[in-house]
Amino acid sequence: MPPQPKVPAATALSQEELHGIDAYWRASNYLTVGQIYLLDNPLLREPLKLEHVKPRLLGHWGTSPGLNFIYAHLNRVIRLRDANVIYVCGPGHGGPAMVANTYLEGTYSELNPDVSLDEAGMRKLFRQFSFPGGIPSHAAPEVPGSINEGGELGYALSHAYGAAFDNPDLIVACVIGDGEAETGPLAAAWHSNKFLNPAHDGAVLPILHLNGYKIANPTVLARIPPEELRSLLVGYGHEPFFVEGDDPFEMHERMASVMDEAFRNIREIQEDARAGSGSGKRPCWPMIVLRSPKGWTGPKEVDGLKTEGFWRSHQVPLSGLAGNAEHLKMLEDWLRSYRPEELFGEDGSPVPKVLSAAPAGTRRMSANPHANGGMLRKSLEMPGLAPHAVEVSRPGEGKAEATRVMGGFLREVMRTNEVSRNFRLVGPDETASNRLQGVFEVTGRAWMEQVLPEDTDLGPEGRVLEILSEHTCQGWLEGYLLTGRHGLFSCYEAFIHIVDSMFNQHAKWLDASRDIPWRRPISSLNYLLTSHVWQQDHNGFSHQDPGFVDVALNKKADVVRVYLPPDANTLLCVTDHVLRTWDRINIIVAGKAPSWQWLSLDQARAHCNAGIGIWDWASGKGSGDPDVVMACAGDVPTVETLAAVQILREHMPDLNVRVINVVDLMTLQPREVHPHGLTDRAFDALFTTDKPVIFAYHGYPWTIHRLTYRRTNHSNFHVRGFNEEGTTTTPFDMTVLNGLDRYHLVQSAVERTPATRASGESLRQMMQERLLQHHDYIRAHGQDMPEVRDWQWSGD
Amino acid sequence: MPPQPKVPAATALSQEELHGIDAYWRASNYLTVGQIYLLDNPLLREPLKLEHVKPRLLGHWGTSPGLNFIYAHLNRVIRLRDANVIYVCGPGHGGPAMVANTYLEGTYSELNPDVSLDEAGMRKLFRQFSFPGGIPSHAAPEVPGSINEGGELGYALSHAYGAAFDNPDLIVACVIGDGEAETGPLAAAWHSNKFLNPAHDGAVLPILHLNGYKIANPTVLARIPPEELRSLLVGYGHEPFFVEGDDPFEMHERMASVMDEAFRNIREIQEDARAGSGSGKRPCWPMIVLRSPKGWTGPKEVDGLKTEGFWRSHQVPLSGLAGNAEHLKMLEDWLRSYRPEELFGEDGSPVPKVLSAAPAGTRRMSANPHANGGMLRKSLEMPGLAPHAVEVSRPGEGKAEATRVMGGFLREVMRTNEVSRNFRLVGPDETASNRLQGVFEVTGRAWMEQVLPEDTDLGPEGRVLEILSEHTCQGWLEGYLLTGRHGLFSCYEAFIHIVDSMFNQHAKWLDASRDIPWRRPISSLNYLLTSHVWQQDHNGFSHQDPGFVDVALNKKADVVRVYLPPDANTLLCVTDHVLRTWDRINIIVAGKAPSWQWLSLDQARAHCNAGIGIWDWASGKGSGDPDVVMACAGDVPTVETLAAVQILREHMPDLNVRVINVVDLMTLQPREVHPHGLTDRAFDALFTTDKPVIFAYHGYPWTIHRLTYRRTNHSNFHVRGFNEEGTTTTPFDMTVLNGLDRYHLVQSAVERTPATRASGESLRQMMQERLLQHHDYIRAHGQDMPEVRDWQWSGD
Repeated sequence: MPPQPKVPAATALSQEELHGIDAYWRASNYLTVGQIYLLDNPLLREPLKLEHVKPRLLGHWGTSPGLNFIYAHLNRVIRLRDANVIYVCGPGHGGPAMVANTYLEGTYSELNPDVSLDEAGMRKLFRQFSFPGGIPSHAAPEVPGSINEGGELGYALSHAYGAAFDNPDLIVACVIGDGEAETGPLAAAWHSNKFLNPAHDGAVLPILHLNGYKIANPTVLARIPPEELRSLLVGYGHEPFFVEGDDPFEMHERMASVMDEAFRNIREIQEDARAGSGSGKRPCWPMIVLRSPKGWTGPKEVDGLKTEGFWRSHQVPLSGLAGNAEHLKMLEDWLRSYRPEELFGEDGSPVPKVLSAAPAGTRRMSANPHANGGMLRKSLEMPGLAPHAVEVSRPGEGKAEATRVMGGFLREVMRTNEVSRNFRLVGPDETASNRLQGVFEVTGRAWMEQVLPEDTDLGPEGRVLEILSEHTCQGWLEGYLLTGRHGLFSCYEAFIHIVDSMFNQHAKWLDASRDIPWRRPISSLNYLLTSHVWQQDHNGFSHQDPGFVDVALNKKADVVRVYLPPDANTLLCVTDHVLRTWDRINIIVAGKAPSWQWLSLDQARAHCNAGIGIWDWASGKGSGDPDVVMACAGDVPTVETLAAVQILREHMPDLNVRVINVVDLMTLQPREVHPHGLTDRAFDALFTTDKPVIFAYHGYPWTIHRLTYRRTNHSNFHVRGFNEEGTTTTPFDMTVLNGLDRYHLVQSAVERTPATRASGESLRQMMQERLLQHHDYIRAHGQDMPEVRDWQWSGD
Repeated sequence: MPPQPKVPAATALSQEELHGIDAYWRASNYLTVGQIYLLDNPLLREPLKLEHVKPRLLGHWGTSPGLNFIYAHLNRVIRLRDANVIYVCGPGHGGPAMVANTYLEGTYSELNPDVSLDEAGMRKLFRQFSFPGGIPSHAAPEVPGSINEGGELGYALSHAYGAAFDNPDLIVACVIGDGEAETGPLAAAWHSNKFLNPAHDGAVLPILHLNGYKIANPTVLARIPPEELRSLLVGYGHEPFFVEGDDPFEMHERMASVMDEAFRNIREIQEDARAGSGSGKRPCWPMIVLRSPKGWTGPKEVDGLKTEGFWRSHQVPLSGLAGNAEHLKMLEDWLRSYRPEELFGEDGSPVPKVLSAAPAGTRRMSANPHANGGMLRKSLEMPGLAPHAVEVSRPGEGKAEATRVMGGFLREVMRTNEVSRNFRLVGPDETASNRLQGVFEVTGRAWMEQVLPEDTDLGPEGRVLEILSEHTCQGWLEGYLLTGRHGLFSCYEAFIHIVDSMFNQHAKWLDASRDIPWRRPISSLNYLLTSHVWQQDHNGFSHQDPGFVDVALNKKADVVRVYLPPDANTLLCVTDHVLRTWDRINIIVAGKAPSWQWLSLDQARAHCNAGIGIWDWASGKGSGDPDVVMACAGDVPTVETLAAVQILREHMPDLNVRVINVVDLMTLQPREVHPHGLTDRAFDALFTTDKPVIFAYHGYPWTIHRLTYRRTNHSNFHVRGFNEEGTTTTPFDMTVLNGLDRYHLVQSAVERTPATRASGESLRQMMQERLLQHHDYIRAHGQDMPEVRDWQWSGD
């Protein structure tokens, strides 16, 4: 049991403040333990019995008292300064602590009236936690004020910075557990302060919580020598303030004065920057290191083993209560050590001393609208597409770089929404490499370090966020979206796998949020995946991986969209669409290399609206059912398919070929699986029920099988795509290595179509010869054969 | 063009040494530029013409001169001290630099005799680089001495530490680019020094190469104030030595003396630790910061724009040579500035001054066997399985925790190979949580920080590596395997997605290595994925994701294996198997919760050898073709399938049910796709060609469809698995939420089997009632209904 704390004689806090904060802290600790353990008898009005205790004890105690301590002191400073603060809880497994505070603030009951601020409500609060049909054990979307689930550690700090960008009045208090601090994404995110402008962004106050232990191990940062820790944090660009100890009242004193100082420093930095009286340099932002015992105020020892201040406090320090009366007694003593009778009134509601320790209204961190960003979200002002469209009077009359065209459009989106300051591009140092540099005509890259005369598009005012950490990019954008703004992440296709797990967590967040009535929709998370597998001929095998789509398809269908626009105008339409959507993850895969253009803007609009369609102009002249369907999804597969169809039409003019292009991959799924899915009838009308389908796909071939295996004609689908055959070579050779090139497609069509299987032998041989010519040519010249192409269409 | 460097008057290096090193450096720079640009005229014996230049210019110049500079100075110190060093090249895109050095060392020609040390060989060397049919542009497996492709930045430092563990004589020089330093995985890996024991591990010498720029941006670490950088590196636990400038001779001087000091410090630390005279504390290891211009010695300006010392040097500083005679002239001047006539003799071979700057034999970093780990690999001594086997005289007679049983076996593997010191377990703080704590009976967790009296299984001698960074765990293990040792990574199933991209890169490395005759096989990368989706009822939705297998299946079939042992003895057999394999990635998915046991050790052996099989004892008594096939893969699906079959047998005794269990998921793939795939004939014999198959699968259902879509009976496959329906609930409720439970399986079987569709209505209703009972029970009691089960089998 914790000792009764000594009250220091002289205190900077008034006795009333001190006791108010401590009462609040005890109340939140009590409610935390109650959630983990109690089914009934929530106020301990009677002696604790086994039947009052949950049969399965789930939850994490260890981190919770520290989280509560921080919460209490943030509340104090919010009240004192009328500060606008949200709380990002890195150790999200301390869910019961976060719930406890939102309950004390009244927010929980406002949003869930059945969990009222009285004994009945407290009983429900306790029972529902980690209970079937109840609430999750983490700081999940169900927790008011949360924008960080925290189950998968590592993203608290990048989320916090994402929330702070373009929110000048907001202070994001970000608790980082010392376990989380060992992860790569967290370690990278410390440098986010190099991108935060005190003049027009908010502030992040990192609070490194050293409670010393992970699940079963000490943590690195808690055990390295203190001077090394300080050096590390200074190296990250912070001024660290240390709050260390275990005596509650001394710790309250120290924490209160450190919080004051940190908030004062933040205010000074901002005032200087906003008055233009600052140095113009990156300021040295304060941060707090809280070193407190794991499981602070919990059982000191259990069964003779050290528990408080040790990893044994991580989850449930007391267990096996059914067979252990002593443990049950210890639990009761532990709960009573918080003196609940002083904290809750007769009806079970918190006493005024506790209630008044929390701020009111939207100053409550659990009710701050920034943490329910949809409440603040304004739709983007969308510029027109027409000025950016590529003129295409005839398919294939010219080439364009699709992402460069998109860059021009994004420039206008940036410009049009400049006043709102609610749109950002993020990416790992690749905005220009990905041909989006058009945006640099209206804004630069954010950069708070020194700017040299030779630097380009770089400075404190930049709205493009570039850091060579896909994790940080993703975390920033998530934080930005979760607080009600808009954005797009452009990335090399292969390396988006780096954030697979972050994608998973965000998709789960969106999925869970949909069932929570008070969570308002947030803008979609938009990816542009470019420098894709077919354009990494120069960087080679390590840069060739189109598999992110497969990760995405594992998530709930209604959350995920995948678009493969075949040219610049379709990319424009898709971009325009995704920036208007909410609560989704949109993945756009599009190339940056000069490539043939097929559709005018109007045609592109119609095609993108349908998501999939027959390209009559490219198909054969025959009417009725085709002999063979040539389908394609992706820019390079579209070029190869159309080139193959040209060869077929030249050499087999009687063959009735149908060309289908897929922009919206989700149309292939059954309607009952995905809202964009075609009905079986519509699908069969496109793909026939019995004709061979040669499908050229951008990614791994089995992705198409996975999407279409329930379709009538699936057994006739022959899919070509990326088969992990890659190296440093020419662009066209990449398609040849994987059998996605025009010559292989022609051969497939000839082989699979009954009418041509015999008659097509000479054409097949011709294709083999072309492949050999290609092979010899590139080895002699180091580049692809010059392409001389005059596309011939049905209407010509 | 670079100015002719000043030679300092007084120098610590002799003039001969200085000029020797500089000559070597010029030679490697020349060979680097030559690879990027030249098709012919390799020695510039005639004026450079356009036809001597490659038509496509691919490669990265910017980082290369720095890499060469470091290589030259490492060579010096290796010769001086007869040191055993390998070079981990973080900026692996500097592939031409690495190749250049291996060529100068003679290794490249030894391994590729056609690339000889003469003019003809140099022509080939130049031509093959980034050329169709040639070699990749990165430090790929094709590069002798490489263990780090470096295309996807972030893993250099964890690879380096992996190589250093248990290699007491080895010094791993690890070049970290300042771009790479921004990534999360790299940022986390700095703390690896807390796990390296100078007494019996080797040393890592990090060399942070600040060349200031990424693709199009300054880097964070190059632009933060110098005192902040120093503080950061001290905070990482290092003593940094700075080498800064652009005058080659001054830089040679400084680098040579810093290298001497660093190697001397390393030696002193090791001698102290090994003599037992050290403090026992973690030493402060040296590291080097090299601040040199990007594209050092390249063109200073191109078209009036700053190029040397700027990001424009990143790839190919001079391009568009065909239409620009001035650029062609600049290229020639640049190449001639290295004075090739002084560096290469009449026949094109390097002059003795250059050759003698490199060490000899296996001291050459390109020929060090540690960097071709298969050369040093010794098979593990494998203990017997029998002592660890769970006694199973009858299926379902008792329960066991499969991973705890495995932990006992791993303890013996650890013990048996203790002398060889070539086996490590890695994991993010979860070895005990995953029930592998048996290993702690013979060794602890590695830890070089303070050890407190209450700490358990922790200390400098520990062989289990735990850090809360999946990236670092993966990187350590990869480095350990690539240098010829063995290991296993245990991880929560959901969070292995964190290393998806590292997995991809390692799979690509293994795939590419197979085509390189001199690369010797390395031990397989083995994963135990536990605390899996069906056992994360307490942590909830964020911890529920079985999709890593789907990422893995995208890679080349012969590299990947996936095992789903249904019980403890099958897990033992699979573990024993994977630790004997090489050049693969083995994924084992197995639960840690107490679970029913089915097979004796002998039965388990037979079942695992087959990989898939009919469980006759569980199937119905009928002979001939079954009415319905109940298939399962994974421990929880197996329990639910067997429970469903019990219900079917009780209520529909005439129904002929066949139970199939899958241990090796790859057996489902067609034989022509995967070497473990069943022939169609064998597959049809198991799954029939026309009977309904109810398949209960551990992961996402479409994974089974993806594997089986080509099989005859695929249209009758009805797969149940994880559908992203998860939360904090009871274990059985997790299966119910996803329709994988026995009651849903029975309903599926009844509905899909023609003979029972009508007659089974009452059974279907009974199942619905059971589901309602379950639902009511868990909401009332917070736990699953007590399970009272007496399994009844065919033979009973």
